[in-house]
Amino acid sequence: MLILGIDTSGKTAATALYEDGKIIAQNNLYTNRTHSQVILPLCKKMLEDVGRSLQNVDVFAVSVGPGSYTGLRIGISAVKAMAYALQKNCVGISTLEALAYNMMGYKGIICPLIKARQDLVYTAFFEGDGRSITRLSDDEIIAQEEVFATLARYNKDIILVGDGADEFYEKYKQDFIYVAPPHLKYQLASSLCLAALDHEDVSADELEASYLQLTKAEKDLNKK
Amino acid sequence: MLILGIDTSGKTAATALYEDGKIIAQNNLYTNRTHSQVILPLCKKMLEDVGRSLQNVDVFAVSVGPGSYTGLRIGISAVKAMAYALQKNCVGISTLEALAYNMMGYKGIICPLIKARQDLVYTAFFEGDGRSITRLSDDEIIAQEEVFATLARYNKDIILVGDGADEFYEKYKQDFIYVAPPHLKYQLASSLCLAALDHEDVSADELEASYLQLTKAEKDLNKK
Repeated sequence: MLILGIDTSGKTAATALYEDGKIIAQNNLYTNRTHSQVILPLCKKMLEDVGRSLQNVDVFAVSVGPGSYTGLRIGISAVKAMAYALQKNCVGISTLEALAYNMMGYKGIICPLIKARQDLVYTAFFEGDGRSITRLSDDEIIAQEEVFATLARYNKDIILVGDGADEFYEKYKQDFIYVAPPHLKYQLASSLCLAALDHEDVSADELEASYLQLTKAEKDLNKK
Repeated sequence: MLILGIDTSGKTAATALYEDGKIIAQNNLYTNRTHSQVILPLCKKMLEDVGRSLQNVDVFAVSVGPGSYTGLRIGISAVKAMAYALQKNCVGISTLEALAYNMMGYKGIICPLIKARQDLVYTAFFEGDGRSITRLSDDEIIAQEEVFATLARYNKDIILVGDGADEFYEKYKQDFIYVAPPHLKYQLASSLCLAALDHEDVSADELEASYLQLTKAEKDLNKK
Protein backbone atom coordinates (compact mmCIF):
# COMPACT_ATOMS: atom_id res chain seq x y z
CA MET A 1 0.00 0.00 0.00
CA LEU A 2 1.27 3.44 -0.98
CA ILE A 3 0.33 6.37 1.30
CA LEU A 4 1.09 9.96 0.34
CA GLY A 5 1.27 12.19 3.43
CA ILE A 6 1.07 15.98 3.43
CA ASP A 7 1.52 18.38 6.33
CA THR A 8 1.06 22.12 5.88
CA SER A 9 -0.24 22.86 9.37
CA GLY A 10 2.87 24.70 10.54
CA LYS A 11 5.86 26.54 9.14
CA THR A 12 7.23 23.43 7.42
CA ALA A 13 5.92 22.07 4.14
CA ALA A 14 6.23 18.32 4.56
CA THR A 15 5.54 15.42 2.23
CA ALA A 16 6.28 11.70 2.54
CA LEU A 17 5.59 8.39 0.84
CA TYR A 18 5.02 5.23 2.86
CA GLU A 19 5.08 1.89 1.05
CA ASP A 20 4.79 -1.56 2.65
CA GLY A 21 6.49 -0.82 5.96
CA LYS A 22 9.01 1.71 4.62
CA ILE A 23 9.17 5.47 4.27
CA ILE A 24 10.44 5.54 0.69
CA ALA A 25 10.66 9.32 0.42
CA GLN A 26 10.29 12.38 2.58
CA ASN A 27 10.80 16.11 2.30
CA ASN A 28 10.56 18.78 4.97
CA LEU A 29 11.13 22.41 4.15
CA TYR A 30 11.07 25.57 6.22
CA THR A 31 10.29 27.92 3.39
CA ASN A 32 9.33 31.56 3.08
CA ARG A 33 7.03 30.83 0.17
CA THR A 34 3.39 30.03 0.92
CA HIS A 35 2.46 26.37 1.21
CA SER A 36 0.15 26.73 -1.81
CA GLN A 37 3.15 27.46 -4.06
CA VAL A 38 5.27 24.68 -2.61
CA ILE A 39 3.19 21.65 -1.73
CA LEU A 40 2.04 20.31 -5.11
CA PRO A 41 5.42 20.71 -6.88
CA LEU A 42 6.98 19.00 -3.84
CA CYS A 43 4.61 16.00 -4.18
CA LYS A 44 5.19 15.80 -7.94
CA LYS A 45 9.00 15.92 -7.60
CA MET A 46 9.01 13.37 -4.76
CA LEU A 47 6.88 10.88 -6.71
CA GLU A 48 9.09 11.27 -9.79
CA ASP A 49 12.26 10.85 -7.73
CA VAL A 50 11.19 7.41 -6.53
CA GLY A 51 9.60 6.35 -9.82
CA ARG A 52 5.99 6.44 -8.64
CA SER A 53 3.03 8.42 -9.97
CA LEU A 54 -0.01 9.99 -8.34
CA GLN A 55 -2.08 7.15 -9.83
CA ASN A 56 -0.09 4.66 -7.70
CA VAL A 57 -1.19 6.32 -4.43
CA ASP A 58 -3.75 4.24 -2.51
CA VAL A 59 -4.52 6.61 0.35
CA PHE A 60 -3.85 10.29 0.98
CA ALA A 61 -3.02 11.32 4.56
CA VAL A 62 -3.17 14.92 5.73
CA SER A 63 -2.91 16.91 8.97
CA VAL A 64 -6.32 18.38 9.70
CA GLY A 65 -5.37 20.66 12.60
CA PRO A 66 -4.96 22.32 14.92
CA GLY A 67 -2.54 24.68 13.15
CA SER A 68 -2.43 27.62 10.79
CA TYR A 69 -5.90 28.13 9.26
CA THR A 70 -4.50 28.95 5.84
CA GLY A 71 -1.92 26.17 5.97
CA LEU A 72 -4.54 23.58 6.92
CA ARG A 73 -6.91 24.71 4.17
CA ILE A 74 -4.12 24.42 1.58
CA GLY A 75 -3.16 20.88 2.60
CA ILE A 76 -6.73 19.63 2.99
CA SER A 77 -7.87 21.19 -0.31
CA ALA A 78 -4.93 19.63 -2.14
CA VAL A 79 -5.65 16.20 -0.69
CA LYS A 80 -9.41 16.46 -1.25
CA ALA A 81 -8.86 17.45 -4.89
CA MET A 82 -6.36 14.65 -5.61
CA ALA A 83 -8.42 11.99 -3.82
CA TYR A 84 -11.62 13.14 -5.55
CA ALA A 85 -10.02 13.20 -9.00
CA LEU A 86 -8.46 9.76 -8.56
CA GLN A 87 -11.39 8.29 -6.59
CA LYS A 88 -9.15 7.34 -3.70
CA ASN A 89 -9.78 7.69 0.02
CA CYS A 90 -8.07 9.91 2.57
CA VAL A 91 -7.19 9.89 6.26
CA GLY A 92 -7.32 13.12 8.23
CA ILE A 93 -4.95 13.08 11.20
CA SER A 94 -4.89 15.49 14.11
CA THR A 95 -1.70 17.56 13.90
CA LEU A 96 -1.10 16.78 17.59
CA GLU A 97 -1.39 13.04 16.99
CA ALA A 98 1.00 13.21 14.01
CA LEU A 99 3.51 15.07 16.22
CA ALA A 100 3.12 12.35 18.89
CA TYR A 101 3.96 9.73 16.22
CA ASN A 102 7.29 11.51 15.62
CA MET A 103 8.26 9.91 18.95
CA MET A 104 7.31 6.32 18.06
CA GLY A 105 9.73 4.01 19.85
CA TYR A 106 9.67 6.23 22.96
CA LYS A 107 8.50 4.87 26.32
CA GLY A 108 6.57 7.36 28.43
CA ILE A 109 4.13 10.23 28.07
CA ILE A 110 4.28 12.15 24.79
CA CYS A 111 2.97 15.69 24.97
CA PRO A 112 2.69 17.63 21.69
CA LEU A 113 2.37 21.39 22.20
CA ILE A 114 1.39 23.84 19.47
CA LYS A 115 1.43 27.52 20.39
CA ALA A 116 -1.96 29.22 20.40
CA ARG A 117 -2.44 32.82 21.58
CA GLN A 118 -0.91 34.22 24.79
CA ASP A 119 -0.42 31.51 27.39
CA LEU A 120 -2.60 28.93 25.63
CA VAL A 121 -1.41 25.85 23.78
CA TYR A 122 -3.07 23.17 21.69
CA THR A 123 -2.30 19.84 23.29
CA ALA A 124 -3.34 16.23 23.85
CA PHE A 125 -1.64 13.50 25.87
CA PHE A 126 -0.32 10.25 24.42
CA GLU A 127 1.57 7.30 25.84
CA GLY A 128 4.27 5.31 24.07
CA ASP A 129 5.24 1.78 25.11
CA GLY A 130 8.21 1.48 22.72
CA ARG A 131 6.14 -0.29 20.05
CA SER A 132 2.94 1.71 19.66
CA ILE A 133 1.25 4.93 20.73
CA THR A 134 -2.02 5.28 22.65
CA ARG A 135 -4.05 8.46 22.88
CA LEU A 136 -4.88 9.40 26.49
CA SER A 137 -6.96 12.56 25.91
CA ASP A 138 -8.74 14.59 23.23
CA ASP A 139 -7.16 17.54 21.44
CA GLU A 140 -7.84 20.71 23.40
CA ILE A 141 -6.70 24.29 23.81
CA ILE A 142 -5.67 24.98 27.41
CA ALA A 143 -3.30 27.10 29.55
CA GLN A 144 0.33 25.93 29.86
CA GLU A 145 -0.13 25.83 33.64
CA GLU A 146 -2.92 23.31 33.26
CA VAL A 147 -0.73 21.18 30.94
CA PHE A 148 2.01 21.17 33.57
CA ALA A 149 -0.41 20.15 36.34
CA THR A 150 -1.58 17.18 34.25
CA LEU A 151 1.96 16.12 33.30
CA ALA A 152 3.12 16.22 36.93
CA ARG A 153 0.35 13.77 37.88
CA TYR A 154 1.47 11.07 35.41
CA ASN A 155 4.60 10.31 37.44
CA LYS A 156 6.40 9.12 34.29
CA ASP A 157 8.99 10.44 31.85
CA ILE A 158 7.47 13.10 29.60
CA ILE A 159 8.68 14.19 26.19
CA LEU A 160 7.51 17.45 24.63
CA VAL A 161 7.11 17.83 20.85
CA GLY A 162 6.01 20.73 18.63
CA ASP A 163 6.63 24.48 18.31
CA GLY A 164 5.54 25.09 21.90
CA ALA A 165 7.97 22.55 23.40
CA ASP A 166 11.01 24.77 24.04
CA GLU A 167 9.10 27.63 25.64
CA PHE A 168 7.20 25.24 27.90
CA TYR A 169 10.39 23.43 28.89
CA GLU A 170 12.15 26.68 29.80
CA LYS A 171 9.21 27.68 31.98
CA TYR A 172 8.58 24.38 33.79
CA LYS A 173 12.00 22.66 33.64
CA GLN A 174 11.96 19.36 35.58
CA ASP A 175 14.14 16.24 35.61
CA PHE A 176 11.30 14.10 34.26
CA ILE A 177 10.60 16.45 31.32
CA TYR A 178 12.51 16.06 28.03
CA VAL A 179 12.30 17.88 24.70
CA ALA A 180 12.18 16.09 21.33
CA PRO A 181 15.48 16.40 19.42
CA PRO A 182 15.61 18.92 16.52
CA HIS A 183 14.93 16.33 13.79
CA LEU A 184 11.72 15.18 15.55
CA LYS A 185 10.46 18.45 17.06
CA TYR A 186 8.25 19.69 14.23
CA GLN A 187 5.67 18.21 11.88
CA LEU A 188 6.96 15.34 9.72
CA ALA A 189 4.85 13.82 6.97
CA SER A 190 6.61 10.48 7.55
CA SER A 191 5.14 9.98 11.01
CA LEU A 192 1.81 11.31 9.71
CA CYS A 193 1.77 8.33 7.32
CA LEU A 194 2.43 5.99 10.27
CA ALA A 195 -0.44 7.55 12.24
CA ALA A 196 -2.69 7.07 9.18
CA LEU A 197 -2.10 3.30 9.38
CA ASP A 198 -3.90 3.33 12.75
CA HIS A 199 -7.02 5.06 11.35
CA GLU A 200 -9.90 4.22 9.02
CA ASP A 201 -9.88 6.08 5.72
CA VAL A 202 -12.79 8.21 4.54
CA SER A 203 -13.94 9.62 1.21
CA ALA A 204 -12.73 13.02 -0.01
CA ASP A 205 -16.18 14.42 0.87
CA GLU A 206 -15.94 13.38 4.49
CA LEU A 207 -12.47 14.85 5.15
CA GLU A 208 -12.73 17.87 7.46
CA ALA A 209 -10.44 20.36 9.17
CA SER A 210 -10.36 20.49 12.96
CA TYR A 211 -9.37 24.02 13.93
CA LEU A 212 -10.42 23.67 17.63
CA GLN A 213 -11.12 27.41 17.60
CA LEU A 214 -13.50 29.50 15.54
CA THR A 215 -11.87 31.61 12.84
CA LYS A 216 -12.12 35.39 13.24
CA ALA A 217 -14.69 35.49 10.41
CA GLU A 218 -16.85 32.93 12.23
CA LYS A 219 -16.57 34.82 15.53
CA ASP A 220 -17.59 38.06 13.78
CA LEU A 221 -20.55 36.30 12.17
CA ASN A 222 -21.68 34.88 15.52
CA LYS A 223 -21.54 38.36 17.09
CA LYS A 224 -23.99 39.73 14.49
CA MET B 1 25.79 27.95 11.96
CA LEU B 2 24.61 26.20 8.81
CA ILE B 3 25.50 22.50 8.42
CA LEU B 4 24.82 20.62 5.19
CA GLY B 5 24.56 16.88 5.82
CA ILE B 6 24.84 14.17 3.15
CA ASP B 7 24.32 10.42 3.52
CA THR B 8 24.84 8.06 0.59
CA SER B 9 26.04 5.07 2.61
CA GLY B 10 22.91 2.98 2.06
CA LYS B 11 19.98 2.71 -0.33
CA THR B 12 18.65 6.14 0.56
CA ALA B 13 20.04 9.39 -0.76
CA ALA B 14 19.68 11.78 2.14
CA THR B 15 20.41 15.47 2.56
CA ALA B 16 19.60 17.91 5.36
CA LEU B 17 20.30 21.44 6.50
CA TYR B 18 20.75 22.29 10.16
CA GLU B 19 20.70 25.94 11.21
CA ASP B 20 20.90 27.28 14.78
CA GLY B 21 19.11 24.43 16.56
CA LYS B 22 16.67 23.63 13.75
CA ILE B 23 16.56 21.18 10.87
CA ILE B 24 15.41 23.67 8.22
CA ALA B 25 15.26 21.15 5.37
CA GLN B 26 15.61 17.47 4.77
CA ASN B 27 15.15 15.00 1.93
CA ASN B 28 15.34 11.23 1.98
CA LEU B 29 14.85 9.22 -1.18
CA TYR B 30 14.88 5.51 -1.92
CA THR B 31 15.78 5.82 -5.56
CA ASN B 32 16.82 3.43 -8.31
CA ARG B 33 19.21 5.96 -9.79
CA THR B 34 22.80 5.96 -8.56
CA HIS B 35 23.67 8.35 -5.74
CA SER B 36 26.09 10.17 -8.08
CA GLN B 37 23.18 11.26 -10.29
CA VAL B 38 20.97 12.25 -7.38
CA ILE B 39 22.98 13.77 -4.56
CA LEU B 40 24.22 17.09 -5.97
CA PRO B 41 20.92 18.08 -7.64
CA LEU B 42 19.23 17.18 -4.33
CA CYS B 43 21.56 19.54 -2.39
CA LYS B 44 21.12 22.32 -4.94
CA LYS B 45 17.30 22.05 -4.91
CA MET B 46 17.15 21.89 -1.10
CA LEU B 47 19.32 24.99 -0.66
CA GLU B 48 17.22 26.91 -3.23
CA ASP B 49 13.98 25.80 -1.56
CA VAL B 50 14.96 27.40 1.74
CA GLY B 51 16.64 30.45 0.18
CA ARG B 52 20.21 29.49 1.10
CA SER B 53 23.24 28.98 -1.14
CA LEU B 54 26.23 26.66 -0.97
CA GLN B 55 28.32 29.71 0.03
CA ASN B 56 26.23 30.01 3.23
CA VAL B 57 27.23 26.53 4.43
CA ASP B 58 29.69 26.63 7.35
CA VAL B 59 30.39 22.92 7.74
CA PHE B 60 29.76 19.86 5.58
CA ALA B 61 28.81 16.63 7.38
CA VAL B 62 28.97 13.25 5.69
CA SER B 63 28.63 9.56 6.60
CA VAL B 64 32.03 7.95 6.20
CA GLY B 65 31.00 4.32 6.63
CA PRO B 66 30.55 1.51 7.10
CA GLY B 67 28.23 1.10 4.13
CA SER B 68 28.23 0.64 0.36
CA TYR B 69 31.76 1.29 -0.95
CA THR B 70 30.50 3.14 -4.02
CA GLY B 71 27.89 5.06 -2.06
CA LEU B 72 30.43 6.20 0.51
CA ARG B 73 32.90 7.28 -2.15
CA ILE B 74 30.21 9.35 -3.89
CA GLY B 75 29.17 11.17 -0.70
CA ILE B 76 32.69 11.74 0.57
CA SER B 77 33.97 12.93 -2.84
CA ALA B 78 31.07 15.37 -3.16
CA VAL B 79 31.70 16.80 0.31
CA LYS B 80 35.48 16.94 -0.13
CA ALA B 81 35.05 18.80 -3.45
CA MET B 82 32.56 21.32 -2.10
CA ALA B 83 34.52 21.94 1.12
CA TYR B 84 37.78 22.29 -0.80
CA ALA B 85 36.29 24.69 -3.36
CA LEU B 86 34.68 26.87 -0.69
CA GLN B 87 37.52 26.48 1.85
CA LYS B 88 35.18 25.17 4.50
CA ASN B 89 35.68 22.30 6.94
CA CYS B 90 33.91 18.95 7.12
CA VAL B 91 32.90 16.41 9.74
CA GLY B 92 32.99 12.73 8.87
CA ILE B 93 30.54 10.70 10.93
CA SER B 94 30.40 6.94 11.32
CA THR B 95 27.25 5.65 9.61
CA LEU B 96 26.52 3.64 12.77
CA GLU B 97 26.78 6.72 14.96
CA ALA B 98 24.50 8.72 12.64
CA LEU B 99 21.94 5.89 12.84
CA ALA B 100 22.19 5.96 16.65
CA TYR B 101 21.42 9.70 16.57
CA ASN B 102 18.12 8.89 14.77
CA MET B 103 17.02 7.73 18.23
CA MET B 104 17.95 10.90 20.14
CA GLY B 105 15.43 11.34 22.95
CA TYR B 106 15.43 7.58 23.62
CA LYS B 107 16.47 6.17 27.01
CA GLY B 108 18.36 2.89 26.84
CA ILE B 109 20.85 1.06 24.64
CA ILE B 110 20.83 1.99 20.95
CA CYS B 111 22.18 -0.69 18.65
CA PRO B 112 22.61 0.21 14.97
CA LEU B 113 22.96 -2.82 12.69
CA ILE B 114 24.07 -2.67 9.06
CA LYS B 115 24.04 -5.94 7.14
CA ALA B 116 27.46 -7.21 6.08
CA ARG B 117 27.94 -10.60 4.40
CA GLN B 118 26.34 -13.83 5.69
CA ASP B 119 25.71 -13.69 9.42
CA LEU B 120 27.92 -10.66 10.03
CA VAL B 121 26.75 -7.16 10.83
CA TYR B 122 28.45 -3.81 11.27
CA THR B 123 27.56 -2.54 14.73
CA ALA B 124 28.53 -0.37 17.69
CA PHE B 125 26.73 0.19 20.97
CA PHE B 126 25.43 3.53 22.19
CA GLU B 127 23.43 4.68 25.18
CA GLY B 128 20.77 7.37 25.22
CA ASP B 129 19.72 9.18 28.41
CA GLY B 130 16.83 11.10 26.83
CA ARG B 131 18.96 14.22 26.23
CA SER B 132 22.20 13.01 24.65
CA ILE B 133 23.90 9.95 23.22
CA THR B 134 27.10 8.30 24.46
CA ARG B 135 29.18 5.84 22.46
CA LEU B 136 29.90 2.63 24.40
CA SER B 137 32.05 0.76 21.85
CA ASP B 138 33.93 1.17 18.58
CA ASP B 139 32.48 0.32 15.16
CA GLU B 140 33.12 -3.32 14.37
CA ILE B 141 32.01 -6.16 12.13
CA ILE B 142 30.86 -9.16 14.17
CA ALA B 143 28.46 -12.10 14.14
CA GLN B 144 24.80 -11.47 15.05
CA GLU B 145 25.13 -14.03 17.83
CA GLU B 146 27.89 -12.00 19.43
CA VAL B 147 25.75 -8.85 19.19
CA PHE B 148 22.93 -10.63 20.98
CA ALA B 149 25.24 -11.88 23.75
CA THR B 150 26.45 -8.31 24.38
CA LEU B 151 22.92 -6.85 24.31
CA ALA B 152 21.64 -9.43 26.81
CA ARG B 153 24.34 -8.39 29.30
CA TYR B 154 23.26 -4.71 29.36
CA ASN B 155 20.06 -5.53 31.27
CA LYS B 156 18.35 -2.47 29.79
CA ASP B 157 15.87 -1.67 27.03
CA ILE B 158 17.51 -2.02 23.62
CA ILE B 159 16.42 -0.38 20.37
CA LEU B 160 17.68 -1.64 17.01
CA VAL B 161 18.21 0.73 14.06
CA GLY B 162 19.45 0.19 10.49
CA ASP B 163 18.88 -2.23 7.62
CA GLY B 164 19.86 -5.21 9.79
CA ALA B 165 17.34 -4.41 12.55
CA ASP B 166 14.30 -6.40 11.35
CA GLU B 167 16.20 -9.59 10.55
CA PHE B 168 18.01 -9.50 13.91
CA TYR B 169 14.74 -8.85 15.78
CA GLU B 170 12.99 -11.78 14.10
CA LYS B 171 15.87 -14.05 15.05
CA TYR B 172 16.40 -12.98 18.68
CA LYS B 173 12.96 -11.61 19.64
CA GLN B 174 12.89 -10.60 23.34
CA ASP B 175 10.67 -8.38 25.48
CA PHE B 176 13.51 -5.94 26.10
CA ILE B 177 14.34 -5.56 22.39
CA TYR B 178 12.56 -2.95 20.26
CA VAL B 179 12.90 -1.93 16.61
CA ALA B 180 13.11 1.70 15.47
CA PRO B 181 9.88 2.87 13.78
CA PRO B 182 9.88 3.09 9.94
CA HIS B 183 10.62 6.84 9.83
CA LEU B 184 13.75 6.39 11.99
CA LYS B 185 15.00 2.98 10.82
CA TYR B 186 17.34 4.04 8.00
CA GLN B 187 19.97 6.72 7.46
CA LEU B 188 18.71 10.29 7.90
CA ALA B 189 20.88 13.27 7.07
CA SER B 190 19.07 15.28 9.76
CA SER B 191 20.42 13.18 12.63
CA LEU B 192 23.82 13.10 10.88
CA CYS B 193 23.90 16.90 11.28
CA LEU B 194 23.10 16.51 15.01
CA ALA B 195 25.92 13.98 15.40
CA ALA B 196 28.26 16.44 13.64
CA LEU B 197 27.61 18.99 16.41
CA ASP B 198 29.28 16.58 18.84
CA HIS B 199 32.50 16.29 16.76
CA GLU B 200 35.44 18.49 15.77
CA ASP B 201 35.58 19.47 12.11
CA VAL B 202 38.55 18.73 9.88
CA SER B 203 39.84 20.04 6.56
CA ALA B 204 38.70 18.47 3.27
CA ASP B 205 42.14 16.81 3.04
CA GLU B 206 41.75 15.02 6.35
CA LEU B 207 38.30 13.57 5.64
CA GLU B 208 38.50 9.80 5.18
CA ALA B 209 36.20 6.84 4.58
CA SER B 210 36.00 4.11 7.19
CA TYR B 211 35.02 0.92 5.36
CA LEU B 212 35.91 -1.44 8.29
CA GLN B 213 36.67 -4.11 5.68
CA LEU B 214 39.14 -4.21 2.82
CA THR B 215 37.63 -3.81 -0.64
CA LYS B 216 37.88 -6.82 -2.98
CA ALA B 217 40.55 -5.00 -5.01
CA GLU B 218 42.63 -4.44 -1.84
CA LYS B 219 42.25 -8.08 -0.79
CA ASP B 220 43.34 -9.23 -4.27
CA LEU B 221 46.34 -6.92 -4.12
CA ASN B 222 47.36 -8.27 -0.69
CA LYS B 223 47.17 -11.83 -1.98
CA LYS B 224 49.71 -11.08 -4.73
